[in-house]
Amino acid sequence: MKSYDKLIKILNTKKTMLCVGLDTDIKKLPEPIEKSTRGMYYFNKAIIDATKEVAAAYKINTAFYEQYGIKGLEMLFATLDMIPKDAFLILDAKRGDIGNTSTAYAKAFFEDMNADALTVAPYMGSDSIKPFLEYTDKFTFLLALTSNEGSYDFQRLISAGKPIYKHVTDVSATWANHKKLGYVVGATHPDELAKLRGEHPTRVFLIPGVGAQGGDIEAVLSANKGVPSLINVSRGIIYASSGEDYASAAKAQAEYYAGLF
Amino acid sequence: MKSYDKLIKILNTKKTMLCVGLDTDIKKLPEPIEKSTRGMYYFNKAIIDATKEVAAAYKINTAFYEQYGIKGLEMLFATLDMIPKDAFLILDAKRGDIGNTSTAYAKAFFEDMNADALTVAPYMGSDSIKPFLEYTDKFTFLLALTSNEGSYDFQRLISAGKPIYKHVTDVSATWANHKKLGYVVGATHPDELAKLRGEHPTRVFLIPGVGAQGGDIEAVLSANKGVPSLINVSRGIIYASSGEDYASAAKAQAEYYAGLF
Repeated sequence: MKSYDKLIKILNTKKTMLCVGLDTDIKKLPEPIEKSTRGMYYFNKAIIDATKEVAAAYKINTAFYEQYGIKGLEMLFATLDMIPKDAFLILDAKRGDIGNTSTAYAKAFFEDMNADALTVAPYMGSDSIKPFLEYTDKFTFLLALTSNEGSYDFQRLISAGKPIYKHVTDVSATWANHKKLGYVVGATHPDELAKLRGEHPTRVFLIPGVGAQGGDIEAVLSANKGVPSLINVSRGIIYASSGEDYASAAKAQAEYYAGLF
Repeated sequence: MKSYDKLIKILNTKKTMLCVGLDTDIKKLPEPIEKSTRGMYYFNKAIIDATKEVAAAYKINTAFYEQYGIKGLEMLFATLDMIPKDAFLILDAKRGDIGNTSTAYAKAFFEDMNADALTVAPYMGSDSIKPFLEYTDKFTFLLALTSNEGSYDFQRLISAGKPIYKHVTDVSATWANHKKLGYVVGATHPDELAKLRGEHPTRVFLIPGVGAQGGDIEAVLSANKGVPSLINVSRGIIYASSGEDYASAAKAQAEYYAGLF
């Protein structure tokens, strides 16, 4: 099944937009878990088991695994194997490079790791993104307006009457239809998120920035009624408790957010 | 020794700006070499041996290794071990993510892989780049105006009278001095390269796009007289021949470019 169709089916079946972000950091593992890449494995397994009934999607931030070299990559592959078949799998890697290099990345993430979707960065333009879009069964999220403070440095600069992130969404909308290309828009920009949602009602939005980053949940919810979105929560779920009850606390928080979204 | 000091010493000693790009692609390995990750290892070893006397720097495009999963990463680490101590080592990874994620990437590339320098992408702004700049002994190249066609999509949009890539260089120049932060500017934009070089005479520029990508060598050379730059050639050297003589052909091309630059 195409990634887009899989996502729509999940959103309709699970009736939630919750995406659980597995930003697993050895230093933040709960007290009972060994602080090692093996500990990451057990932690991820417990978190996925605790959240899989309510999570529409999982987003894996590849940097947290890449930082541990070969052992980290082994843990990444082991974690990929744990993701349930009825959840949408996003690899959050924010890649983007000249054509032959993006082709190499696309192969790594879409073929070897079998992700449903990947995040990519727009700065290098169309030929850096097209190799990802050539995987017609897969889905690509392009960074538009990110959730961090640094989004004010360049993304909001105005050119020809509109901000750069709007140039990114307007131009990239011509590269692929809504079944192949969606946008990352941070919950920390509620007004801009609402406007973009109105302009691109059929595009899938991946919305980070709720929870630890302080995004406005009410505004995010009102902007995403009846449109295909995934709202990501990472730290707010996986580190809900640092004690023995970390898995049950993650489960409770995931159920809370799944009900809310 | 700090990366910047190491680079300046190499530029003064070897008297060339040549950076050899190890974009090693299994499918393009010369005829006598096994088409496998093990073949990548033997090829890289032969290319580095053939070019190490004249190359000021090596640039390793991490995507070409990452695409082969754990085996590819093993080959990346094996290749890192081959880089001579008197050459500057750049990992071309074009990363950039929210703070805690960029911190993870900085650890991977600067600590575990012990790169002298790393390429990073500007779209997410200051807090996505600062974790790299905190490694005060290391060097970071920020993408400014890239060598590919897609550089015309967003990098050249005009905001407040100047293009986005100029906003990137002007704003980022306030984040770190010339001993920690330099720019990637493609040889395919000779006029813009000459202007940027004039405006940032002390910054190190990493200049891709000569050779296979068709950058104007004369214009690049005239813009980079007496300033600290590295001019990268990847395919033009490493794939100079696809036959038995691939290493001697690479050596001849490296010597040609080293003399020219």
